[in-house]
Amino acid sequence: MSNNIPTRFPDLAPKGPSGELLLAAERAKTSFDVKDLSRFMYTKKWLDKMTQITEVLESEPAFDKTNRYYQSREEKISTSLWKDRRLTELVKEQKWSETETQIANFLFDQSTPFTLHYNMFIPTLRTQTTDEQKKLFLEPALKHHIIGCYAQTELGHGSNVQGLETTATYIPETNEFEIHSPTLTSSKWWIGGLGKAATHAIVMARLITNGKDFGPHPFCVQIRSLQDHRPLKGITVGDIGPKFGFNTVDNGFIMFEHYRIPHVAFLAKYSKVKAGSGEYVKPPNAKLSYGTMVFVRANIVMGSRFALAKATTIAIRYSAVRQQFVDAANPRKWDNKIIETPVIDYTMQQYRLLPAVAATYAFFFTGREMLRLYDLNQEAMKNGNFDLLADLHASSSGLKSLTTTMAISSIEDCRRACGGHGYSNFSGLGQFYQDYLPNVTWEGDNYILTQQTSRYLLKTFRNVVAGKAVPSEYNQTITYLTQYLENPKAKCPATKPADFLNPELILSAFGFRAAYGIAQVAEQIDRHGRTWNSMLVEIARISKAHCQFVLVRNFIIGLQADASLSTPERRPISNVLKTLSALFALYTMEQELAEFLLPGYLSSEQTAMLKAQVISLLDEIRPNAVGLVDAFALPDYFLHSALGKYDGKVYEAMTQMAEREPLNHTQVVQGYEECIKPLISQGQAEGRWRQDGLLQVASKL
Amino acid sequence: MSNNIPTRFPDLAPKGPSGELLLAAERAKTSFDVKDLSRFMYTKKWLDKMTQITEVLESEPAFDKTNRYYQSREEKISTSLWKDRRLTELVKEQKWSETETQIANFLFDQSTPFTLHYNMFIPTLRTQTTDEQKKLFLEPALKHHIIGCYAQTELGHGSNVQGLETTATYIPETNEFEIHSPTLTSSKWWIGGLGKAATHAIVMARLITNGKDFGPHPFCVQIRSLQDHRPLKGITVGDIGPKFGFNTVDNGFIMFEHYRIPHVAFLAKYSKVKAGSGEYVKPPNAKLSYGTMVFVRANIVMGSRFALAKATTIAIRYSAVRQQFVDAANPRKWDNKIIETPVIDYTMQQYRLLPAVAATYAFFFTGREMLRLYDLNQEAMKNGNFDLLADLHASSSGLKSLTTTMAISSIEDCRRACGGHGYSNFSGLGQFYQDYLPNVTWEGDNYILTQQTSRYLLKTFRNVVAGKAVPSEYNQTITYLTQYLENPKAKCPATKPADFLNPELILSAFGFRAAYGIAQVAEQIDRHGRTWNSMLVEIARISKAHCQFVLVRNFIIGLQADASLSTPERRPISNVLKTLSALFALYTMEQELAEFLLPGYLSSEQTAMLKAQVISLLDEIRPNAVGLVDAFALPDYFLHSALGKYDGKVYEAMTQMAEREPLNHTQVVQGYEECIKPLISQGQAEGRWRQDGLLQVASKL
Repeated sequence: MSNNIPTRFPDLAPKGPSGELLLAAERAKTSFDVKDLSRFMYTKKWLDKMTQITEVLESEPAFDKTNRYYQSREEKISTSLWKDRRLTELVKEQKWSETETQIANFLFDQSTPFTLHYNMFIPTLRTQTTDEQKKLFLEPALKHHIIGCYAQTELGHGSNVQGLETTATYIPETNEFEIHSPTLTSSKWWIGGLGKAATHAIVMARLITNGKDFGPHPFCVQIRSLQDHRPLKGITVGDIGPKFGFNTVDNGFIMFEHYRIPHVAFLAKYSKVKAGSGEYVKPPNAKLSYGTMVFVRANIVMGSRFALAKATTIAIRYSAVRQQFVDAANPRKWDNKIIETPVIDYTMQQYRLLPAVAATYAFFFTGREMLRLYDLNQEAMKNGNFDLLADLHASSSGLKSLTTTMAISSIEDCRRACGGHGYSNFSGLGQFYQDYLPNVTWEGDNYILTQQTSRYLLKTFRNVVAGKAVPSEYNQTITYLTQYLENPKAKCPATKPADFLNPELILSAFGFRAAYGIAQVAEQIDRHGRTWNSMLVEIARISKAHCQFVLVRNFIIGLQADASLSTPERRPISNVLKTLSALFALYTMEQELAEFLLPGYLSSEQTAMLKAQVISLLDEIRPNAVGLVDAFALPDYFLHSALGKYDGKVYEAMTQMAEREPLNHTQVVQGYEECIKPLISQGQAEGRWRQDGLLQVASKL
Repeated sequence: MSNNIPTRFPDLAPKGPSGELLLAAERAKTSFDVKDLSRFMYTKKWLDKMTQITEVLESEPAFDKTNRYYQSREEKISTSLWKDRRLTELVKEQKWSETETQIANFLFDQSTPFTLHYNMFIPTLRTQTTDEQKKLFLEPALKHHIIGCYAQTELGHGSNVQGLETTATYIPETNEFEIHSPTLTSSKWWIGGLGKAATHAIVMARLITNGKDFGPHPFCVQIRSLQDHRPLKGITVGDIGPKFGFNTVDNGFIMFEHYRIPHVAFLAKYSKVKAGSGEYVKPPNAKLSYGTMVFVRANIVMGSRFALAKATTIAIRYSAVRQQFVDAANPRKWDNKIIETPVIDYTMQQYRLLPAVAATYAFFFTGREMLRLYDLNQEAMKNGNFDLLADLHASSSGLKSLTTTMAISSIEDCRRACGGHGYSNFSGLGQFYQDYLPNVTWEGDNYILTQQTSRYLLKTFRNVVAGKAVPSEYNQTITYLTQYLENPKAKCPATKPADFLNPELILSAFGFRAAYGIAQVAEQIDRHGRTWNSMLVEIARISKAHCQFVLVRNFIIGLQADASLSTPERRPISNVLKTLSALFALYTMEQELAEFLLPGYLSSEQTAMLKAQVISLLDEIRPNAVGLVDAFALPDYFLHSALGKYDGKVYEAMTQMAEREPLNHTQVVQGYEECIKPLISQGQAEGRWRQDGLLQVASKL
């Protein structure tokens, strides 16, 4: 018998009822039109495109996910490059628009060496270059004649961009800049696409001209030969090594040794260095770029919705299939026989999962609102009106922080809620957690971002106190602060659990709680002279409180204001979304209970009502659990999860994926001859265990 | 120039002050004798052994960690087998005792295919076999003539052991058992060591004899040939595939097709099946085995202390080296020049890390106390006294749940507190998180375990109410419940922040809060008829509240009762531990604030004092931060972390480890010719980018 016989499972069915039947029963319980809820969120057009592109990708070997969970780092990089190249061809063959290409990348769901070329290199070249530079850099980048990355972070500097060490010194004699890395810590680090793929990099370096340091500015620098891809002289470049996740990307380092680049490499749309004299020309007002940050963050919020959608789809479907124990007080029956209880029927499982489903919809409504306000604000700024900007920008910092922190935590909660199998990579949740995690650090560290939001909240509070701020539709912060100052001893009016379903009661509570926290911090700093540093813990809390208010409000108001939800056909959808908005708000209130109790706003009797209402909402949503995640419309190709399969064939998928494990391609493991056989054969030599099989051994005793 | 030139960093120093100097400055601030605190925790003897064994391992190629973060799954398995074999030799060469072997495994810090042979196979054979079976199975197992594993969990059944499907039917005709897997879900799954290494397995299967099903019982089953390691006929066995972590272990599956084993394979120390008649003989009282569970869980608590110790050592050392921004209100100076502030000086960073340091010591005192009570209880049970057992066993369930949940969450908090570099595997925290994670699932799922604790708490509450339980030194649960019932409207007596440092005040508060929660749940269930399922959320909360009481109490009482801490020389150590115990208690109180506010026990004024006291404790502990983690005495070999190195040479280590990345062994990446060159060369063909280097290109424009 050869050693290369792959292991195959016997052809047996799982213990019944099967996952297929269980999920069908769940789907029959759904109170609303699942497909219509998908259309409400994505539009029919987008869904049709997604279906069509999924079909294309499923037949493309370069986009095949079958081997995704078994690859070594080197295999990950080379298959990613394959996908990158094939995508450039597919875009042409299929005539995909930018949106369609984005959908393809969304479905593939894995970053690659070219990801930063599209997400950072090209956008930077679009916004920060002169026309001459667009010809020189942007045009070839769009054609993939050069491949770029964005090199900002250094080994010693992340959040503090002003502390970057790499220098770019203007040399008037040759009209060049000299890029230099003065220390080990000045090595660029973490730069996606730089490690192995990029030919060019946007390098953020301290501009030094005429002996003066003007701080970090962007330069477009060629780093590898266009003939043979070797690093150019004066450059040390490579991959920074294995990471917790994101190992399909070649995050890299680069160091420069007095490396010369021409004057035209300095991206000169805003600030300029005059050729010859080296005179520095300052950029105009930087406020405009805040708009872009809002846009990026709105998209991160929308992205965190997909993260939650993916995690909850997997966990909820599997929880409806997986049965464990019999709930004696309320045994589940199937064909008149008691079966083990599907774990989704346990309140604790619902408490762990359903609020995350609710949060998915909450993120959707807030992301949509952020994009709406972004458009409004861009329009307003064109007319010189910056009124909207401050609140929008400040909230976007805290919302990026809060939603990504919530999303990553929910992914892990969902993974654990899948029990032991959540730990298998076949769950689709492990690598996903690892790959999503950088979201809490990039585009602003989540802790540091809260300071931006809180600084604005404190400033607004002082303005409201001084009578210098007037409530407006576009500034709810001023509104809730004003209301608080009018009645800082307010109490929650609830007298029965159902009162907690009242949207006005909910919004008042969240507004009051945020305002109370802000007032406390302002008092500590302004009256008691506490330092900013000593208040950082509370500063993070008020940012969170404010952003929870925003999430709750956008969910509630979004439902009320959306005309497309007010038709009779959509009443069931509108109803289930209302229930979810209540769950999201009340579950959040329960998690943050101390901050509602502290000002005496909520009493312990009301807390008991609140908790009862949360449990009763879980109960109400429970029959729609599978329908609600089905509505996220995430295809199996996207999920690539044994536990989250639409058809519920969980155990079949687990065993099929185990058969593909490379270790199972041979019967006897590598290392047996050297490491196991010598030990065992000693026993054989001693004569006790000469025969195979316990039967014979035992009979010899 | 060949493509195989490895990438090397230039010989540059990091920006000063260096990590070495910064850590030296931290160490000079320590108020106590670091080495003496290590001795207090571990004993001098254990520390000496560890030092000695570390030296041995550092010169053993099979124990080398250099390539640990770069290996594919197959490499992980084969190098793990190499370590397993070499360890069997080292034990003989070095004449290591069991403790010394454990220290070697602790230092190696990675599970292997043989881990379950030692941790489950041998212990099961020790405790559940007859003398005949010890000769047949245990003796060869101890000599590694057979390699075993423990096969309980199935694809469809984890926590619910009674639901296992695999059958073992007694065949009187041949005096055999027939092991059979009736369904796909009955496949054994997750079994460490089974996938590729084991020759034998303890299989938990439903015993069926004379047509009656007696539920799961253990059998010792040979599964692979001792001649050539191939699976025996009737067996399908293999590796379950890649996991979130633990990929150095061959977790496996196995299915049996009417597989016969002899009568002697049934582990017959407790229950028996009579040969011939097949008559089943019941085991004696199962209570005795609860003692073993307490022992296992006490060791998990002690293990979670090491998990925290490792994570905090890395995060604190790196936080003392890493500088970011200047704290304008309190700039840090070095040689009279302002430098960027080491991040450990930011209150938020202290708030994220120092409570985890305090928890490490808290887990130590509770683990020690659990082991002491375990010994006491074993002694008492021998004398027929089961008084201690119930409280000890119940608390151990919740403590396993709470401490492992806290540990895993702290590992991740520490990883994030390391900023971007925490995401690099070189931090030592990523793979560590992945490998530690199963602790929240195995030995009882952490959510399910809380139900065991709470069931006991509710029962005890009812007994106290009925006057059937009397407070005793060994049952603090009865004590705090009795106190609560005497004064259910008690209030916290604190009138100034310093009052919160009073150990009695702290213990009363935690006791009251636990009792209040228990009373509420009892009322809901006993008076309002709420089902157990509908109360699961609160049931988890009271288990946590009780275990936090236990952790706080063991820390405080442990310090008070330990004579070895009362000498004048150890006063500084005693002082710093007292401060840590206060931080642990008050930080926990702040995290669980709602439960202290809800019963009206704490007022909002007192909360402000509490929060102020927490910040002031952080400030007090801050100068000892590095000393406190140094005292954990974890060698660099154990940590294997660039960020956590004792000498603070963080950036040197990061770059050295990056040089070893396999992708950096060649200058041009695999995939360039097929995927990148075709794209770029189109640009070359168009004539725009014919020359290398931007200089030439630009000059042509």
